[in-house]
Amino acid sequence: MEKNSGVQLARRIAAGELPAQDAMAEACERIATSEPEIQAFVATLDRATALSHAAQARGPLAGLAVAVKDIFDTADLPTAYGSSIYAGYQPGSDAAIVSLIRRAGGTVIGKTVTCEFAYMAPTQTRNPADLRRTAGGSSSGSAAAVAAGMVPFAIGTQTGGSTIRPASFCGIAGYKPSYDLFPTPGMKCFSWSLDTVGLFAATVTDVAWFAEALIGRSLARSPLDMRQLVVGIPQAYPWEAPSASATQAVQQASTAIEAAGGKVRQIALPAWIGELYRAHAPLQEYEATQTLAFEFDRHRGSLSPMLGDFLQRAQRISVVQYDAARKLIDDAKMQMDSLFEGIDVLLTPSAPGEAPMGWTSTGDPAFNKVWTLLGTPCVSVPGLSGLEGCPMGVQVIAPPWQDQRCLAAAALVEAAIRTCRF
Amino acid sequence: MEKNSGVQLARRIAAGELPAQDAMAEACERIATSEPEIQAFVATLDRATALSHAAQARGPLAGLAVAVKDIFDTADLPTAYGSSIYAGYQPGSDAAIVSLIRRAGGTVIGKTVTCEFAYMAPTQTRNPADLRRTAGGSSSGSAAAVAAGMVPFAIGTQTGGSTIRPASFCGIAGYKPSYDLFPTPGMKCFSWSLDTVGLFAATVTDVAWFAEALIGRSLARSPLDMRQLVVGIPQAYPWEAPSASATQAVQQASTAIEAAGGKVRQIALPAWIGELYRAHAPLQEYEATQTLAFEFDRHRGSLSPMLGDFLQRAQRISVVQYDAARKLIDDAKMQMDSLFEGIDVLLTPSAPGEAPMGWTSTGDPAFNKVWTLLGTPCVSVPGLSGLEGCPMGVQVIAPPWQDQRCLAAAALVEAAIRTCRF
Repeated sequence: MEKNSGVQLARRIAAGELPAQDAMAEACERIATSEPEIQAFVATLDRATALSHAAQARGPLAGLAVAVKDIFDTADLPTAYGSSIYAGYQPGSDAAIVSLIRRAGGTVIGKTVTCEFAYMAPTQTRNPADLRRTAGGSSSGSAAAVAAGMVPFAIGTQTGGSTIRPASFCGIAGYKPSYDLFPTPGMKCFSWSLDTVGLFAATVTDVAWFAEALIGRSLARSPLDMRQLVVGIPQAYPWEAPSASATQAVQQASTAIEAAGGKVRQIALPAWIGELYRAHAPLQEYEATQTLAFEFDRHRGSLSPMLGDFLQRAQRISVVQYDAARKLIDDAKMQMDSLFEGIDVLLTPSAPGEAPMGWTSTGDPAFNKVWTLLGTPCVSVPGLSGLEGCPMGVQVIAPPWQDQRCLAAAALVEAAIRTCRF
Repeated sequence: MEKNSGVQLARRIAAGELPAQDAMAEACERIATSEPEIQAFVATLDRATALSHAAQARGPLAGLAVAVKDIFDTADLPTAYGSSIYAGYQPGSDAAIVSLIRRAGGTVIGKTVTCEFAYMAPTQTRNPADLRRTAGGSSSGSAAAVAAGMVPFAIGTQTGGSTIRPASFCGIAGYKPSYDLFPTPGMKCFSWSLDTVGLFAATVTDVAWFAEALIGRSLARSPLDMRQLVVGIPQAYPWEAPSASATQAVQQASTAIEAAGGKVRQIALPAWIGELYRAHAPLQEYEATQTLAFEFDRHRGSLSPMLGDFLQRAQRISVVQYDAARKLIDDAKMQMDSLFEGIDVLLTPSAPGEAPMGWTSTGDPAFNKVWTLLGTPCVSVPGLSGLEGCPMGVQVIAPPWQDQRCLAAAALVEAAIRTCRF
């Protein structure tokens, strides 16, 4: 099924060409058609409630179905955080981001599959681009629901690479905002220093519009022109090397940018980026031993072996290691200006390669961890494929709080790629 | 009733002089005796469960009763966040700080009265030092439960001055740790940039020991000697002037420090402190419109007029004002070294004066907001009284993440005050 452009749907609804209830009815039908195959949802709103909500809704998202990762509390739908410990659990309130969706008129059409507590244990969700592959994680269902055209917009989270990676695997746009730009309260916390709300839509233009509708910042209007854009591309990474698919995607993006009049500069990542990369594990582990203490201490037997072992190992992280990791981040943030000197944004692969086959792994967040640690905005730009014919995203990164620049540059890259027809 | 020294109780239990169950039975009796008058609790564990837990507990807090502000989720006790919206609500898990109490062997004996969502609407809790006065807020019940000797330890929170102020009013030690040092997940969020766990105990020595027992950092062992200590005392404040009671308390503390061999320096607060003070309102307001969106949008009629009006007004805060407030904080953090140049800690009044009479206000957080914004550790030192004969605390402040220094300096000040017998 075709992916849904949220912006185009919203325009038709606003112009009176498409009644809001009809748009919602179409979303319900698309979900009914695709869900048995994709398995993106753990709970959905019943059709009558969804239609009635859409009929009454006011605001930019009126008539639009939004899927929300089941790591966020919802007062009207059960919330299990991907864990059997919370099967059937009904929170008493909506997470803040859910309230923002409703304030903008959006209908929270359902809760999507998440890795257990948004960690790494594989989910059953199928990748709409290739049903034999994972949709990625931990925001598996949100990415797949958008990629399958079931909903125009979805909410996920990122603590390592849980938004950018599934967006890349599924061939859609994923946006990890600057740390703290979108509210996390009401999200089941994994790591308070890292947890970030993520957004998904069919294209970068759509995801920027969705982001603006939610928090009322100027995020969708571009302050950039391709002829002034300077994109920095790292020559190498202090973690695993990109696959041939990832390398090809970055080369194609580079070609497309230059063909459209933009500039590309090869850059060398500074040495501290490699140190910072290694700070992700102790930081996340130390915090998870506290945030998931209740589940580990009281329900160990109901955790997956992967998460149970992780939390067991994580207890070895000392206060000294944790403080050292925090200090590395603080020091790194001071050097952000030098990282972006002479360039507007960075461009890297969104993931090491295409989505892995099968359901034994949700993929590797290696290309995402440093940016999550730094709190930078990141956008996964869709439109390219790898050597196996599956989607392969490129990631645009801007300095913290420069989300408008990041989204605008990503939209220019997206348009340039589309023009090139690789 | 006498306040309970948690350290002394713990020593007697560890030495086998006091069986853990007997210590717990005494806490239950003290609660039964004092609670009708003080009204510190909204829910308590039944006695049999408490005794059984104490008998089995292991760890530094075994046998010790800990009261927890009813803004934190507990899986075994209802959690209402001080709001009728959540009357009888039973969360599915424990907040992280609650798990840390249990890991250390402590018994969560009950949930304490909080201002509605930890804001400012007055509570009914009486001040044990003078039953005609407020215990302060928003951690009213936690401070009062410790001050009345019902429990040796309690947990609160601070977003403006909700730990230091009630500690000052009730004549006990209050400790607001560095921002993010103690985990907030599972706390009902008001402002994600400000919310901080707070700790209460009878004395500074007790609260430092309690803090160390919870997170396993060296917080209770002093790295300081009074003869090397340099305390900076601001000559004036860019907010309301301290009352005669507050001025007297700071003068007495100053006299006590010098009598004990420490040094006191009069300092002038830099101009940016005044600017920063004014950033508290827009920052908190902007974030609260998102964190309490569900309650405002769906249950407006069940909010107090004070909070409902606050949230209504708060919607006027623009993204530009919010970003300006954040920038002020970021800039201020860069100037922290100059603020503490030549001194180890700052010393100020904990509050503008003694606890107000009656229950129409929980008091004023003017002397606390800037330190909450900066994320510095703060300790309210007990032992002094104001002109009306009620407790009046002095506040010791250290640079962020220098919690050990802050607690050690506060303990030295406490001992010096005790020696002087004002």
